[in-house]
Amino acid sequence: MNRIITIGRQFGSGGRELGKRLAQELGVPYYDREIMEEIAKRTSLAEGYVQQIMDQRPGYCYPITVGRTLHGGIANDYLLRQLATVYAEQTNTLREMAERSDCVIVGRCADCILKEMKPVRIFVYADMSFRLDRCSRKATEEEHLTMKQLERKIRAVDRARAKYYRYCTGQIWGDRANYDVCINTTNTDIRAAAHALAMMIKGEQA
Amino acid sequence: MNRIITIGRQFGSGGRELGKRLAQELGVPYYDREIMEEIAKRTSLAEGYVQQIMDQRPGYCYPITVGRTLHGGIANDYLLRQLATVYAEQTNTLREMAERSDCVIVGRCADCILKEMKPVRIFVYADMSFRLDRCSRKATEEEHLTMKQLERKIRAVDRARAKYYRYCTGQIWGDRANYDVCINTTNTDIRAAAHALAMMIKGEQA
Repeated sequence: MNRIITIGRQFGSGGRELGKRLAQELGVPYYDREIMEEIAKRTSLAEGYVQQIMDQRPGYCYPITVGRTLHGGIANDYLLRQLATVYAEQTNTLREMAERSDCVIVGRCADCILKEMKPVRIFVYADMSFRLDRCSRKATEEEHLTMKQLERKIRAVDRARAKYYRYCTGQIWGDRANYDVCINTTNTDIRAAAHALAMMIKGEQA
Repeated sequence: MNRIITIGRQFGSGGRELGKRLAQELGVPYYDREIMEEIAKRTSLAEGYVQQIMDQRPGYCYPITVGRTLHGGIANDYLLRQLATVYAEQTNTLREMAERSDCVIVGRCADCILKEMKPVRIFVYADMSFRLDRCSRKATEEEHLTMKQLERKIRAVDRARAKYYRYCTGQIWGDRANYDVCINTTNTDIRAAAHALAMMIKGEQA
């Protein structure tokens, strides 16, 4: 069975950077936006629209895996059907990637979807002040958000991730019980953390 | 300033083993029961009694640091005064240890008491099944607990730790926001985790 590493991350915590560095250290593929591209291709939906669906935050939070009938009015029904389609393709895409080779997968409920493969489940988080600083340093020239707006955006993205995760897996996003390692990047050097995690995953001892 | 590593841990998760191995890897002293011995000496209370005081779980959970008057009846007042004495000596002992040299400190709210020294704060946890297995393997011959009794004991120790921590620091024990790294030992080799953490603390990069 391939060795799969999944990374859940708070927005702005550096989870993507940590994932990329970890994949480099381990010499394995890194999947992040590629997953969204693949889902878009398979569902014939635009990539941006797939992202929007994931961010819609369904009003009813029954886990999709429970298989209940979901009643939320016509508009909600339509959205929920699309969510189910996206989730099904996400599951297929992730399973195919995981079966191809060892890899690092960022986000997309991979920790839960691939649980039979016993992935190493990492969650990356940081204090709000660190995330604000990191996001504002990384902002493109077109983004002109005040710190207040940026904080609102960070909280909104996290809320959407948490709801989508809860909806798809029935679990609580970021609950340490669901992860093998949780890393707070506020005071931790991401390069050193990636190196240490690679050591740990390879099972290297002193 | 010395480099201090603090380890909070769920009962039976292997936090003490991880702390010992980490101290060995870093070549620094490891403090655990020594702290209790020192508090007992300084307060002229028996060691077992100090432990009992810490486990009494005060009915009122105002953090001791807030400095409010605590009303809880005569018996409770007496207990709370002793708790305050123990906590004061715990603070002195930990500060002296931390000023002496780099070190690893297990438990005793050290993450919070020493926060001006910016310790690396680790929390170690594991699934109940793992902890039951570990505890029953490590039980002495005199301990004859059924699995149900052992689980009750594990939960009681954790509850006492959580209450004492909440009482002394005003923070929630085990809340990942208060730690730099949280390690789930259920599927993680403790030797490899200690080695990886040592790498990370030394800031070693690939």
